[in-house]
Amino acid sequence: MFDAYGTLFDVYSVGLLAEQLFPGQGQALGVLWRDKQIEYTRLVTTSNGGEFYQSFWDLTRAGLRYACKRLGLALSASAEERLMNQYRHLSAFPETREVLQALKNRGIVTGVLSNGDPAMLDIAVRSAGLEGLLDHVLSVDAIRKYKTHPDAYALGPQATGLPARQIAFVSCNSWDALGATWYGFPTLWVNRYALPFEELGTLPARTGNSLLDVLEFFPDAIASI
Amino acid sequence: MFDAYGTLFDVYSVGLLAEQLFPGQGQALGVLWRDKQIEYTRLVTTSNGGEFYQSFWDLTRAGLRYACKRLGLALSASAEERLMNQYRHLSAFPETREVLQALKNRGIVTGVLSNGDPAMLDIAVRSAGLEGLLDHVLSVDAIRKYKTHPDAYALGPQATGLPARQIAFVSCNSWDALGATWYGFPTLWVNRYALPFEELGTLPARTGNSLLDVLEFFPDAIASI
Repeated sequence: MFDAYGTLFDVYSVGLLAEQLFPGQGQALGVLWRDKQIEYTRLVTTSNGGEFYQSFWDLTRAGLRYACKRLGLALSASAEERLMNQYRHLSAFPETREVLQALKNRGIVTGVLSNGDPAMLDIAVRSAGLEGLLDHVLSVDAIRKYKTHPDAYALGPQATGLPARQIAFVSCNSWDALGATWYGFPTLWVNRYALPFEELGTLPARTGNSLLDVLEFFPDAIASI
Repeated sequence: MFDAYGTLFDVYSVGLLAEQLFPGQGQALGVLWRDKQIEYTRLVTTSNGGEFYQSFWDLTRAGLRYACKRLGLALSASAEERLMNQYRHLSAFPETREVLQALKNRGIVTGVLSNGDPAMLDIAVRSAGLEGLLDHVLSVDAIRKYKTHPDAYALGPQATGLPARQIAFVSCNSWDALGATWYGFPTLWVNRYALPFEELGTLPARTGNSLLDVLEFFPDAIASI
């Protein structure tokens, strides 16, 4: 079960267009946009029992607007649409397809468990040509709570009929790898950017540096199928 | 009802010591430490129904350790203790005492509603000489959930016996001002650093730029007492 944004799809691939639109600020905008988007998922999940839930698409737009204001960048309506459209069609990481294909070749059930809403995920999966390689595309929108809420991770066991301990969870986001581990998934953290892991006293079962490590890090899961 | 960290107490006042310990990196460390501390409050609140709760003190230490690793700074045990000790004795903002005294002079019930744990708050309040000026010092540690969880904000009405709509909430943290507004407090956001407000479609009742604005922004509350 793979996280989508940041794991299969490169959320920083918007940086090139951002740099064209705002020379010298593309990277800063990409980072702040992403940070704010994630912060917003947490605020709407924690506050008032989810009463103020908004879709990931809307939170992504809100994060973009905040990031531009914070950086002092004038965001025209057309620039906003271009950046949002880019977010809809994020690049998949180069090894994504090969890894999913290898898993399918070994008969492993595959899926995505994402904060993205269904429309976003549908376009992202199809744009990257992954639609035949994923058995499940699960969005937290069904339960209107974002990861790391346990109800979000519970979508995995519910969809597959497998207990959490039999589902390998893969994320490049350290907070997600932590939340998934806490939930009960044997988790691979793909540490793509050579970052420290969270300092909260829990480590993921495995750590790697690309999605290819999925194939090596879960031999038991693979052998058992 | 005042937020404490960032509102009455200057969380960036650790920057001076941080700069002495890590020349050229003090500000970056102060910012990342604070961001990570807040991120950790959210992760432990959202995940597994709070099963992995840790005190604000412990999360503050975890945030410091993460921030140093992320910035490539070698944090010795003695440097860690010095920085943590500094965090225990944060400077109050210059106008803090004057504002609380003015409220007390007008007969207004005052309090702190903070993510900080009771021991931290006790030392911070006494270090700043504020102990006679606060009727309530409320810590979310009592319910083991951090703001913006509604149970955290509910400590205000519970302690005072007043409904949320009769409690003016004051925070310099935009996410806290948003959460407090969503909860139901008429809220003053003290925008100390001239930042944009959160882009989630809700604005606080009032915005100012120092705690002094409390005195002007709630004339009705003041007049009614």
